Amino acid sequence: MARVSQAHLDARRRQILDAAAVCFARNGFHATSMQDVLKEADLSAGAVYRYFSGKEELIGAIVAEVLGQVHEGFEEAARSSPPPPPDLLVASVLGRVLATKETVTVDGRPAFPRLVVQVWTETLRNEELAAVLREGYGAVRETWTRIVGAYQDAGAMRSDVPPEHVARTMMAAAMGFIAQQALFGPTPAEVLGDGLRALMSVRDEAGTR
Amino acid sequence: MARVSQAHLDARRRQILDAAAVCFARNGFHATSMQDVLKEADLSAGAVYRYFSGKEELIGAIVAEVLGQVHEGFEEAARSSPPPPPDLLVASVLGRVLATKETVTVDGRPAFPRLVVQVWTETLRNEELAAVLREGYGAVRETWTRIVGAYQDAGAMRSDVPPEHVARTMMAAAMGFIAQQALFGPTPAEVLGDGLRALMSVRDEAGTR
Repeated sequence: MARVSQAHLDARRRQILDAAAVCFARNGFHATSMQDVLKEADLSAGAVYRYFSGKEELIGAIVAEVLGQVHEGFEEAARSSPPPPPDLLVASVLGRVLATKETVTVDGRPAFPRLVVQVWTETLRNEELAAVLREGYGAVRETWTRIVGAYQDAGAMRSDVPPEHVARTMMAAAMGFIAQQALFGPTPAEVLGDGLRALMSVRDEAGTR
Repeated sequence: MARVSQAHLDARRRQILDAAAVCFARNGFHATSMQDVLKEADLSAGAVYRYFSGKEELIGAIVAEVLGQVHEGFEEAARSSPPPPPDLLVASVLGRVLATKETVTVDGRPAFPRLVVQVWTETLRNEELAAVLREGYGAVRETWTRIVGAYQDAGAMRSDVPPEHVARTMMAAAMGFIAQQALFGPTPAEVLGDGLRALMSVRDEAGTR
């Protein structure tokens, strides 16, 4: 059997995952067959099944990879002291993740936001995938909670709010922004950064309190 | 034919919409039949079809109703001067909408967040529903843009950020928060209010800028 380089194996794996992402984003998880994925990847069944046993494993790998990227982006921020302010941090991590996926398209539009929304729906009835998602989001939330703690310790954010609530809010903003892209088309991550920066400028005394 | 009061008609309509919401949240839009809705509502076909021609009309009515409630909540805020601060405003509108839906449950959990996520997925392949959603979100975004303008005019928010970017961000936070509820279970809207309030306290000088 021919020896194959690691780079070749990685590229092949990438090719399969991207093809699966396109198929799932285009037709949904249920309406996609492994045959569709083989065709989209232009590979033989043997070549694909060497890497993934089926659709379940493909979608799990895609979700784990993306959440891993998101987690790593925020972990990097958590290591700097003080961490970058929330508007810049969210825009940069989200922008980077969207950029790595922008070549994967369906009908000329990025497949990734559509895929995310479909994965959410799929997890409502797929306990295995739900577990992958819970673990991935849990890791991101844990990192965000530490970042919020760092803001609070540095006196950069009021400390009478539980860090976990802020973590959930930051993640909600990013998740909702991705949902908007799926529904209404691509928008640069800077738009979300702008909105958060504006929110950071709001003064309590201006409100009705 | 017996005369029927408007209150009776409204209650019947409510009963059908809630039953449909439960069915869609439980099994998804495609796997739900009108037969399932009749059974869930405990009504005859004649009683249901007098109100709705089919699934398409049911899901369209549910979406239009919810987005109408959200829109009305923000319109009310837009009429007060100055409008309530963003943290209180989002938490109160979201909390009210979630409260009106909390009696509609699937397996003891609120059906509404699950339904929202499924509607997003459905719109990816249903142009008619996508149009309903675009119109509804467009109206909310327009109202939010005016509210942001009011913050900026009052000097309560920096004015070098396009109001539409802030509007998108506020809506993203609420949308992502609902997605989290679908994925990880119910959370009080105050959690999101807390997170926004904490964000409003962040000072630029504390960051790396």
